Amino acid sequence: MFTDFSDTIIALSTPAGRGAIALVRLSGEDAILHTQQFFKGKNLLEQKSHTVHFGTIRSPQNEILDEVVVTIFKAPHSFTKENVVEISCHGSPFIVKRIIQNFLDNSPVRYAKAGEFTQRAFINGRFDLAQAEAVADLIAADSAASHQVAISQLRGGFSNQIKELRQQLLDFVSLIELELDFGEEDVEFAERDKLISLVKTVQEVVEQLLSSFELGNAIKNGVPTVIAGRPNAGKSTLLNALLNEEKAIVSDIAGTTRDFIEDEISIEGIAFRFIDTAGLRQTDDKVESIGVERARKKMNEASLILYVIDLSELFHQNISKAEFFEEIKEVENLGINTLFVLNKADFWNKINNESSFEWKDELQKWIENTNTIFTQANNTTSREDIEKLKSKILEAIQADDFNAGDTLVTNTRHYESLRGAKLALVDVLNALEMGLTGDLLSLDLRTALEHLGSITGEVSNDEILGNIFGKFCIGK
Amino acid sequence: MFTDFSDTIIALSTPAGRGAIALVRLSGEDAILHTQQFFKGKNLLEQKSHTVHFGTIRSPQNEILDEVVVTIFKAPHSFTKENVVEISCHGSPFIVKRIIQNFLDNSPVRYAKAGEFTQRAFINGRFDLAQAEAVADLIAADSAASHQVAISQLRGGFSNQIKELRQQLLDFVSLIELELDFGEEDVEFAERDKLISLVKTVQEVVEQLLSSFELGNAIKNGVPTVIAGRPNAGKSTLLNALLNEEKAIVSDIAGTTRDFIEDEISIEGIAFRFIDTAGLRQTDDKVESIGVERARKKMNEASLILYVIDLSELFHQNISKAEFFEEIKEVENLGINTLFVLNKADFWNKINNESSFEWKDELQKWIENTNTIFTQANNTTSREDIEKLKSKILEAIQADDFNAGDTLVTNTRHYESLRGAKLALVDVLNALEMGLTGDLLSLDLRTALEHLGSITGEVSNDEILGNIFGKFCIGK
Repeated sequence: MFTDFSDTIIALSTPAGRGAIALVRLSGEDAILHTQQFFKGKNLLEQKSHTVHFGTIRSPQNEILDEVVVTIFKAPHSFTKENVVEISCHGSPFIVKRIIQNFLDNSPVRYAKAGEFTQRAFINGRFDLAQAEAVADLIAADSAASHQVAISQLRGGFSNQIKELRQQLLDFVSLIELELDFGEEDVEFAERDKLISLVKTVQEVVEQLLSSFELGNAIKNGVPTVIAGRPNAGKSTLLNALLNEEKAIVSDIAGTTRDFIEDEISIEGIAFRFIDTAGLRQTDDKVESIGVERARKKMNEASLILYVIDLSELFHQNISKAEFFEEIKEVENLGINTLFVLNKADFWNKINNESSFEWKDELQKWIENTNTIFTQANNTTSREDIEKLKSKILEAIQADDFNAGDTLVTNTRHYESLRGAKLALVDVLNALEMGLTGDLLSLDLRTALEHLGSITGEVSNDEILGNIFGKFCIGK
Repeated sequence: MFTDFSDTIIALSTPAGRGAIALVRLSGEDAILHTQQFFKGKNLLEQKSHTVHFGTIRSPQNEILDEVVVTIFKAPHSFTKENVVEISCHGSPFIVKRIIQNFLDNSPVRYAKAGEFTQRAFINGRFDLAQAEAVADLIAADSAASHQVAISQLRGGFSNQIKELRQQLLDFVSLIELELDFGEEDVEFAERDKLISLVKTVQEVVEQLLSSFELGNAIKNGVPTVIAGRPNAGKSTLLNALLNEEKAIVSDIAGTTRDFIEDEISIEGIAFRFIDTAGLRQTDDKVESIGVERARKKMNEASLILYVIDLSELFHQNISKAEFFEEIKEVENLGINTLFVLNKADFWNKINNESSFEWKDELQKWIENTNTIFTQANNTTSREDIEKLKSKILEAIQADDFNAGDTLVTNTRHYESLRGAKLALVDVLNALEMGLTGDLLSLDLRTALEHLGSITGEVSNDEILGNIFGKFCIGK
């Protein structure tokens, strides 16, 4: 993708639709000049940066297209670091279209490509690639946590960390490559011990960032969470208590909840998309058995399963020990993060006091060694119980110690680059251990540097940029 | 509706949704003060009007809600004539919500009511009521003509005309009321002849404005236009030629077009919403007869009917003279503006040369005395034919001599006020002719003045204002 950035571009920058105000934005060396061509009011060319001017935008035939307020940002003090003009007009799609069309038809201004304003900001050094990507994340953010992570990335937190690591490695590479210049002389400017220690430090940080991706991704995209368990175990009641409103139909008839009711709650700013499913009970009812099949499928797609067990059913020995552990095993075999919710907690004492309940010790042992929580979900589930449950849920996705300031990887592209860097660093360490020559060492280090550099855009190419900015909408 | 306008209001002013930028607007004496409370950057209180400042909006807990650009407009140099702040943030609904919520929770700023920004602009004398209403019309405008009319009204064209008439009448009322002060002395400051002449002039202008309403309304809301006629007369082909694209299914099978295909074209900037209907043929086919019934209903709702007649059917004498004139009469009885389109024009010569066609003279006479046009609608209808048809359509709604500068009444409220003024002026003339006393004359004149004044808001009350601004959206 070759884009010429010397010309002036225009696009609507506010959402499409009707409103009081719409903003049409121009960027480029001649943005002010071309606006002046159609603006009746003060001479914009004589105005200072960061000033606002009332007037009209007129066609070459002197027809008034709208009364507007024009804001001038002079290079480099603008979003794109180019001359930028924002035309604030009435929020009518028709007017916006006419104003933009007027510029396209009667001046050399061209329509902006998707993400081109942000791309120009990146090209002109306003911010790096990870920050540019944060602009899109910020606009897409719809929970407090994803918003925080995007703001922190926009403000360079993540980029600075990567750049610092990269700079340290780069210093070493320079020394190693200096050795190469001396050819046969067998000098070592770069102390190998120090290099090993540095590479290990970098590895640690990269590992830490890589492991933050699961949480980062959960924060960015929300955590798909399935509530599963046998019919009547209390799944809907539990979900309702969490949602705190009557979203799922609560019923005493087994197998009522055949449809998937999806809803979202925010725990500590992280969005959990709850999916209520039918139970996993074996059944001859055709409709219900389809429901069971779909439940299994949904569980497979979840990042977290809340598996509800009805202790009263155990107490009444409606479920045998064999059946119980078979069921548990089936859930655990899915290999998905699971929190077992032991509902109707009052029956736990009853089980313990019931001499005929023969496998209570095994049950107790299982509970202790598994991620479980006791609940008493009913229509008046206590606030305290809900809070405990929420804490357990956060723990389950390892978000319980998440702090606003933490650097989290949320972007798949960054994750892939970090993985590439990690592998290259392993090669570097191997090379060092095997005492390989500087030129081979340098090659592996360069690979690691390239991966790290691609995150912030210090290393980039048109294809990567096209991929990233092409996903932005026009006007960004 | 009592609204307190002393406080500071906030709302999103750009359309809802995602985009690069969203504008949150505050208006009120303390708008700048309250923004400064959450703004980290320059001290906004020390900045000049019409300047723009980069910074961050933070919660009281110092959490960054967004990086923003803040524009300051100081009273009275703003849209509302109050202090106004525009916060330009990232175009994310989540961020917009958090910023607005932050002001509502942590400052005395309150959420704006529907249309309150515009209402404050009106209350503070930024513009009159008709101009305020033009803001809404301008945003709603979706054709060149409705856009022009709204811009002209926003810029005061219509208001000035009304105000001038009102001032002249007001001068006379003052003189007449002065006479009343002199009680028994029987003086006449106000020359009755001049008053009669003035009232007649005002009546003329009011009449002219009233008669512009039909066109004004058509321009504002579009003209619902039905294309009707017997099956296979060429309705769909005609519509396609007008729409210039394949929107209706053209078929040779009689009665194909059972559904209403609605589309719009713009002729000289006026929107015509075309509705293609089934023919009006009597039929035993149940589905089709429902179509015929619906066609009749659609025709009744139209402002303009293009009634298509297939001359080849007349030539082949498939339709008798009696049938023809019965059909015409049925259409004319609807009492709706109708243009009869004589399609397959090449058969007109054939009819004239056909000796067995006995009623050609009557047909000729009918054509001459009716609003008709000959067409040759087929897949290659000539550009010229289409242009002629479009001219005829404009003529039919009397828009053929519409000029961009014309004052048109587009607003039902204005129309009602003008009608009220017209009736009061008739009373004034009657009173003058009957030589009624000054106090009765003054009463009638005051009624006329009130009607005229209500258009521009010189006379208004909370209920009227509530009605007008309550229809605006929040943020306007």
